[in-house]
Amino acid sequence: MSHCPAELFSPLAGFAKLRAFMRDEALDAVVVGPSASFRQLLGRNANLTERMVALLLTADDAVIVVPRLQQPLYQHLPIERAIWDEHEDPTVLACRILRERGCRTIGINREFWSGFLMRMQEHAPDMIFKGAVALDLMRAIKTPDEIAALTRAAHRIDEVWDRFLDQHPILSGRTELELRSAIMSLMQGAGFSHVAWVDVGAGPNGASSLHHGSDYVIRPGDAIVFDFAGVFDGWYADICRVAAAGTPEQEYLDAYSILIEAQEAAFQAIRPGVPASAPDEAARAILTAAGYGDAFTHRVGHGIGLDAHEEPYLVRGSNLQLAVGMVMSDEPGIYLPGRWGMRVEDIVALTADGPVRLNRASRSLAIRK
Amino acid sequence: MSHCPAELFSPLAGFAKLRAFMRDEALDAVVVGPSASFRQLLGRNANLTERMVALLLTADDAVIVVPRLQQPLYQHLPIERAIWDEHEDPTVLACRILRERGCRTIGINREFWSGFLMRMQEHAPDMIFKGAVALDLMRAIKTPDEIAALTRAAHRIDEVWDRFLDQHPILSGRTELELRSAIMSLMQGAGFSHVAWVDVGAGPNGASSLHHGSDYVIRPGDAIVFDFAGVFDGWYADICRVAAAGTPEQEYLDAYSILIEAQEAAFQAIRPGVPASAPDEAARAILTAAGYGDAFTHRVGHGIGLDAHEEPYLVRGSNLQLAVGMVMSDEPGIYLPGRWGMRVEDIVALTADGPVRLNRASRSLAIRK
Repeated sequence: MSHCPAELFSPLAGFAKLRAFMRDEALDAVVVGPSASFRQLLGRNANLTERMVALLLTADDAVIVVPRLQQPLYQHLPIERAIWDEHEDPTVLACRILRERGCRTIGINREFWSGFLMRMQEHAPDMIFKGAVALDLMRAIKTPDEIAALTRAAHRIDEVWDRFLDQHPILSGRTELELRSAIMSLMQGAGFSHVAWVDVGAGPNGASSLHHGSDYVIRPGDAIVFDFAGVFDGWYADICRVAAAGTPEQEYLDAYSILIEAQEAAFQAIRPGVPASAPDEAARAILTAAGYGDAFTHRVGHGIGLDAHEEPYLVRGSNLQLAVGMVMSDEPGIYLPGRWGMRVEDIVALTADGPVRLNRASRSLAIRK
Repeated sequence: MSHCPAELFSPLAGFAKLRAFMRDEALDAVVVGPSASFRQLLGRNANLTERMVALLLTADDAVIVVPRLQQPLYQHLPIERAIWDEHEDPTVLACRILRERGCRTIGINREFWSGFLMRMQEHAPDMIFKGAVALDLMRAIKTPDEIAALTRAAHRIDEVWDRFLDQHPILSGRTELELRSAIMSLMQGAGFSHVAWVDVGAGPNGASSLHHGSDYVIRPGDAIVFDFAGVFDGWYADICRVAAAGTPEQEYLDAYSILIEAQEAAFQAIRPGVPASAPDEAARAILTAAGYGDAFTHRVGHGIGLDAHEEPYLVRGSNLQLAVGMVMSDEPGIYLPGRWGMRVEDIVALTADGPVRLNRASRSLAIRK
């Protein structure tokens, strides 16, 4: 359970931020069950289980619906506790609270269990329940303190990569799992409280996003894709870099240059007011012109913060407008099944001065032996 | 990610079992996102993320909605794959598939993200979405093979407890966290693939269900509540036992006898056709008569299987009828805040011959030094 670091946690400031977005979205209330949003607002995690826990936030009130056994966990917070006993239905209680406060249009956090929502819809057929865009925006638009925390996490994962390269001048003959284990140890040693994933794909395995690591023995000339992520002091870091066991074939080197160009094009397209699809289109245009359009099989990026993946998703079709304060990955890739793959990922913050990379590890193909 | 063990996994048998319950519940289709139900039906886990994955099961068809990048994971299964690309909306695709098959009443797994459900409700206002009791029942009523697997898991956790007692003749002076760590190591050594929790509460800490373990140093006369659970070969084991550092005061010993009596009463009340509230009432009656009614603060039990908690919940107000094949915990407790606590838990299978305890570790208070 990763908690939000104390210095960044201020429930009243968080409530004010969310309420501003609720007004914009014409929501009378937001229901927030256990999730990164819950963590952001209340400074602690809760388990997502059959025992419903939910913060109900209205324009001028905050109530947490909580099972009796868990209520001491919330007694220090400046919110009312609505306690339910084991034989009571917490969804009835939640609807009563919302009704007493005159709420009609209710935003729900996306990860809230459908089982609870459907019971609320049954108890309150007069209320309108909808996905809480307000929560997405509250999380997507980071404060300067939050961007500083994400920057520290990014620098920390950069150090892991640099240290890994220093410690592994020879990659030929090693297995993917050995290298994966080495990165995990370095992350733990660097203070990551949670290693979310370490994917190592060498040679043809680099072309599959389903490949996380295996006994495959790295051969001279293989390129190796490393994608790893984790939580540092409550906030996610996520990076992808490529190393090679000796110089790969010319086609790979040429494609890598194009990939770097595509990543830079997406980076430059991260501007306030553009749709979140724009960076994806910018990278895709370059890869398509080079004949790799079909080989770029995923979106170019995702938001990052208290969750590994959150808004804004940089994907074709998204109309969400990018705004100052948003932080997102920029990670185009080229995958030729059966042959090789490549992907380069940085975390980018959109500031008043334009996009800024939080990672500073070299994006060059790291050629080792 | 724990998968369902291969020998217990047969998608077509699972589909047939679920379809029988769907008919009883008049459901045209069931939507199953990543969850223990998904694991049970498809033999593998899937990540619950913003990229929607869901099995759609109708009376005569099975389709999995899956992102393109993940579709190879499902190609070995006897089901159609409906693949969506990064810029497409999988909820539109799911609604189209259900509509083409004439489905109107749709069961949804409880853990399915509300964000997906609300989009489906928007795309298909003519369809009725409801909690899938059929899924609860499919999971709750175990096959003989599944009960055998749960029995192996129960015996395995019994061995952990017995070994722990053998290795720890002296409890005074140890900290809760030391004992917690010892049990975790024993579980890992016994082959548990996932340690779900190990809660150790000594002396007054035994009275709080929020207490998981601390630096508290055990004192002579302290009783210590141990509750631990984990996954063995895909299936959950969960047990609670009490040990003491020397003989506790007489009041504790007397209460412990009453607790054992209450646990036995709940056990005897586990009968086919009775409501799931009956065992809770049976235990509560005994504890109330002894003056401990208010000190028993939670339900008496929960179902167990591929999830740690699932139907049937043995709780006041539940009308679910117990049936042969159901497997559930029986775990009354007595908690006197600031003084002490106690709880004893066994896993019980309801067979054609009546209730059977799967655990065989002694329920006696284990008096050590």
